[in-house]
Amino acid sequence: MNNLSEIYSNDRVTLREVGLRDGLQMVRTFPSTEAKRRWIAAEYAAGVRHFEVGSFLPVSRMPQFADVRELITTVAGLDGAYSSALALNERGAADALETELDEIVCVVSATEEHSQANMRRSRADAIALVGKIADLARASSSPPRINVAISMAFGCSIAGAVSHSEVLRLLEACLEAGADNVAIADTVGFAGPRQVEDLCSATARLCGDRPFIVHLHDTRGMGIANASAALDGGARVLDGSLGGLGGCPFAPGATGNVVYEDLVFLCETKGFATGIDLEALTAVRAIPEAEMPDEKFYGALARAGVPSGLEWRA
Amino acid sequence: MNNLSEIYSNDRVTLREVGLRDGLQMVRTFPSTEAKRRWIAAEYAAGVRHFEVGSFLPVSRMPQFADVRELITTVAGLDGAYSSALALNERGAADALETELDEIVCVVSATEEHSQANMRRSRADAIALVGKIADLARASSSPPRINVAISMAFGCSIAGAVSHSEVLRLLEACLEAGADNVAIADTVGFAGPRQVEDLCSATARLCGDRPFIVHLHDTRGMGIANASAALDGGARVLDGSLGGLGGCPFAPGATGNVVYEDLVFLCETKGFATGIDLEALTAVRAIPEAEMPDEKFYGALARAGVPSGLEWRA
Repeated sequence: MNNLSEIYSNDRVTLREVGLRDGLQMVRTFPSTEAKRRWIAAEYAAGVRHFEVGSFLPVSRMPQFADVRELITTVAGLDGAYSSALALNERGAADALETELDEIVCVVSATEEHSQANMRRSRADAIALVGKIADLARASSSPPRINVAISMAFGCSIAGAVSHSEVLRLLEACLEAGADNVAIADTVGFAGPRQVEDLCSATARLCGDRPFIVHLHDTRGMGIANASAALDGGARVLDGSLGGLGGCPFAPGATGNVVYEDLVFLCETKGFATGIDLEALTAVRAIPEAEMPDEKFYGALARAGVPSGLEWRA
Repeated sequence: MNNLSEIYSNDRVTLREVGLRDGLQMVRTFPSTEAKRRWIAAEYAAGVRHFEVGSFLPVSRMPQFADVRELITTVAGLDGAYSSALALNERGAADALETELDEIVCVVSATEEHSQANMRRSRADAIALVGKIADLARASSSPPRINVAISMAFGCSIAGAVSHSEVLRLLEACLEAGADNVAIADTVGFAGPRQVEDLCSATARLCGDRPFIVHLHDTRGMGIANASAALDGGARVLDGSLGGLGGCPFAPGATGNVVYEDLVFLCETKGFATGIDLEALTAVRAIPEAEMPDEKFYGALARAGVPSGLEWRA
């Protein structure tokens, strides 16, 4: 486990690799633990430092995350790297606390309808659970950070529009319940850049010095534009997945997470140094591609390469 | 021919369909004239009004543009629709002036190296040619507009970096030579959103009330993010192609023009009404797809559809 006070900072951009978690949420086949370890090691060598490696869920429900403990150990062995994993109930959190996990991710739905449909609990109960998990964590010998993501923060596939004020109210409640960081997620890819910039600006004001995370999907092709808008709105921590791995449970065949490689290019052209070697990173795609030949991998940098003959980093 | 003073306006967003020209620049097979007409008619029915329909070049060199005259006639028969076509020499311009074309597009390279390599003339000669074509046009009975595009305005695959001041100098020279409108083109997809917003802001200051056009490529996945930045920088006329048809001559297999459908979604979420029916527009893809089964069509809206259950237009 690494120095937790340094997981995120508003002084630099952090790009979280969520391909090993969100990217594998819906796949039929998934990489072996050994291949996942090679994937992590190769991305680490390319400069990636933040890895979301799975969920603490019953193995029978999500066999792709059966090796979450082994991967946490893998990340813990890499100097300056951080692991995070989802815990959706107290049992999952208790399991997580027996590992060297750096960050527990909890999820609260932006709408009551989605909360009941997806988690079978109210939003108030979800926030109370955050409090319990935060208490559990703090009572542990080496407490991980608590990161609470508001899903459907930019619109809900069940309840429709979500107001910024409602999201801000929930974010505040999560922080009061004990979250160290909060995240806003465009779970179904409804957002456009104006909405993203506005909600990020408001979230930045709420969070002050505390970095917040923005989790965007490319479902409607706005992924990179929304990431750019998030940076303009003051966000400094963004999620992505190698090759855009992942999908959308509510839009079969749709593109998934923002492509990590393209996100690196975006940040660098905007003057945000990522510390990531783009050529080395795109080469990593071969590992999950070989393990999941039926999955579609996206991304333009992997096809076109970086611009040649000029300094494309701002 | 329609009222030329109204081709573009800074009071609204105009999305130019360049799929019938730039989208067909590199293809091996291309649609029949009859299919192109159906493509135009179907997009017109969906709300598209600006069509770049080909180049006035020797048929032997570019057989895909052999029907440029017929397509100009097609567009001329559609109320409120505008046609544009490339003319790269005086002969092409003279041919164009015998049609009902609304806009002649001329091209000037941002760099001397690319100008010589691509057009076998200096930039000064290219600008002088603009002047000659503008004079020819104005001497005609029903003069089309002259639109001069600066290619490689965001970086050149031959000469490398291109300074904004150099682009502005060329834009000014083109306007002095008789251009009605100017365009800035990211021909090889080198730009990021910061660069796009900055150059658009400077171009907007130079052009004043005169609308300017931004032609972006999605070569490195920045197409929509750059379009968003262009709008932020004051651009109100953007190019795109249905399904992102087109490629990059300097990056084989790379994505091409910005996807028109996704561009519509972007604009609408930012509060710029396009007048375009996105469902009707995405249905048009079937026409070129059937004619060019080997070409790759891109775009996320066509896969995911618009968000349901809420008003996604700002």
